[in-house]
Amino acid sequence: MLFEEAEHGCQLRYFEVGPGGNSTLERHEHVHAVLILRGHGTCLIGDEVREIGEHDLCRVPPLTWHQFRAASDAPLGFLCLVPIERDRPQLPTAGELAALRANPAIAAFLG
Amino acid sequence: MLFEEAEHGCQLRYFEVGPGGNSTLERHEHVHAVLILRGHGTCLIGDEVREIGEHDLCRVPPLTWHQFRAASDAPLGFLCLVPIERDRPQLPTAGELAALRANPAIAAFLG
Repeated sequence: MLFEEAEHGCQLRYFEVGPGGNSTLERHEHVHAVLILRGHGTCLIGDEVREIGEHDLCRVPPLTWHQFRAASDAPLGFLCLVPIERDRPQLPTAGELAALRANPAIAAFLG
Repeated sequence: MLFEEAEHGCQLRYFEVGPGGNSTLERHEHVHAVLILRGHGTCLIGDEVREIGEHDLCRVPPLTWHQFRAASDAPLGFLCLVPIERDRPQLPTAGELAALRANPAIAAFLG
């Protein structure tokens, strides 16, 4: 946690995953704003897999599956801005995961 | 402006000043959270002058004079997080500026 101020209503957090690592695949009602601070890799947001690098900004809409993956050669560090008052993340059920994997690009991303 | 979401209550903005340049010397009721994204330089927060570099985080408390200055060799780029609902910045009066300059470290910073 980098910053929280009641008047702002939001928290600024920093996450870092090791080389080849990844964040949890999850979704929630609240919106994420993510800004890549260091490293590079790929992310899944909804049904889109995209390359991410330093200073890229990603918006994760409500109830949208998302995951961030570091490339194998460097850690991936990113800022994540969230509302202080927010719902808890949901993890995919086996059925939801199978539905995601039906998309070849997402299956390749998930590995 | 990088990101604003009503549910968050805050705005994430990006500012960049050129080599040797500076932000406005100002103060306001709302708190700033500033994160240096690129470059380096110095900043004044209240009566403290400090060196700043990539990924440093600065909190500017309410009604505290502050200014960010880029070093002469590179632009200074920083994120600034503010509440959506906020007061307007105040500029120093001639008297307030003279009071600031009475501190030799601040006078040297202001140039």
